[in-house]
Amino acid sequence: MPRSPSTPKLPAPASAPRRADAARNRDKILAVARRAFAESDGDVSMAEVSRRAGVGMATLYRNFPGRRELLEALYTEEVDAVCAPAPAAEDEGAGAAFVAWLRRFVAFSTNKRQIAAELLTHVDSANPVFNENRDRVLAAGRPLLAAAQASGEVRADLSLEQILDMVIAIVRISADAEYVAPILEIALEGLRG
Amino acid sequence: MPRSPSTPKLPAPASAPRRADAARNRDKILAVARRAFAESDGDVSMAEVSRRAGVGMATLYRNFPGRRELLEALYTEEVDAVCAPAPAAEDEGAGAAFVAWLRRFVAFSTNKRQIAAELLTHVDSANPVFNENRDRVLAAGRPLLAAAQASGEVRADLSLEQILDMVIAIVRISADAEYVAPILEIALEGLRG
Repeated sequence: MPRSPSTPKLPAPASAPRRADAARNRDKILAVARRAFAESDGDVSMAEVSRRAGVGMATLYRNFPGRRELLEALYTEEVDAVCAPAPAAEDEGAGAAFVAWLRRFVAFSTNKRQIAAELLTHVDSANPVFNENRDRVLAAGRPLLAAAQASGEVRADLSLEQILDMVIAIVRISADAEYVAPILEIALEGLRG
Repeated sequence: MPRSPSTPKLPAPASAPRRADAARNRDKILAVARRAFAESDGDVSMAEVSRRAGVGMATLYRNFPGRRELLEALYTEEVDAVCAPAPAAEDEGAGAAFVAWLRRFVAFSTNKRQIAAELLTHVDSANPVFNENRDRVLAAGRPLLAAAQASGEVRADLSLEQILDMVIAIVRISADAEYVAPILEIALEGLRG
């Protein structure tokens, strides 16, 4: 029997509630995947993400055609958190605002490491996802550093790249957080000149 | 014909001038080898060391039965330099003395890296040469840090291990010395609290 023209072959345009559902699914998948990657040292299958998020494989693959796309989205979300405007703190000077941003960068460096390592099994380090996101981080930090240096609260003799390399070097020290945290404080203290 | 008892089978005890010669040869070999390893990124043969030091292979092997022994001696010499008593500086406080020692440690960390990497091709990192020398470095630095902390010139909330890990992390940043040097200064500044 011929298909009735009233049976559309293409999906109907998503209605607002369906778009909201889709966004919720995407968010749920990302939240579950982030936790799963952190807990399992990266060895997480798409089937496991689908199961833990409570969405079917079809929904998962509609959102993220593969593991690589899922990892890219996780990585980009981490970068978004560093680039988001800082919560306004009325009484904090430019130096404190810059240091607060550096602390968000530290959290980012720690969270993204596993994700970046996994992502590198799918793309190489020359992939634009890394350079573009690096540029976004630098663009977010640069005005904060400029203000802190202009107010004399942060030493003027270091570039943002140097400061971030210092922070990265310290957070990569292989030891537990309790051992590394005071080392980072010393370095941040040094920035105040 | 039976050997006459007057022909000694063991070498005669070395006379004082011969001992001095031997020490000079050993020093010359070490100096040449250190330079050769630094220049060549580690790819130096025993024959090359013998040629550049102007000593025969027999003399070289009498001093260092193999590449591994030569590397161990170079490594230990670097550690000796860190552990040597600091040159007395009358007007310098305990904080400055500790920081001066850290700067010697930085030079050591930089010089020894190539040697340690080569040495690891002969022995594994559990070899006592590493642990013993690590202990010697810590023993040399500990009283200097204690004095600097007691005088209030260096923050009291970090251990020597943490401070050295901070310094090592920074000097390992892959960039040229001009880029890394100010980062190290910031960190040393932070120590002053």
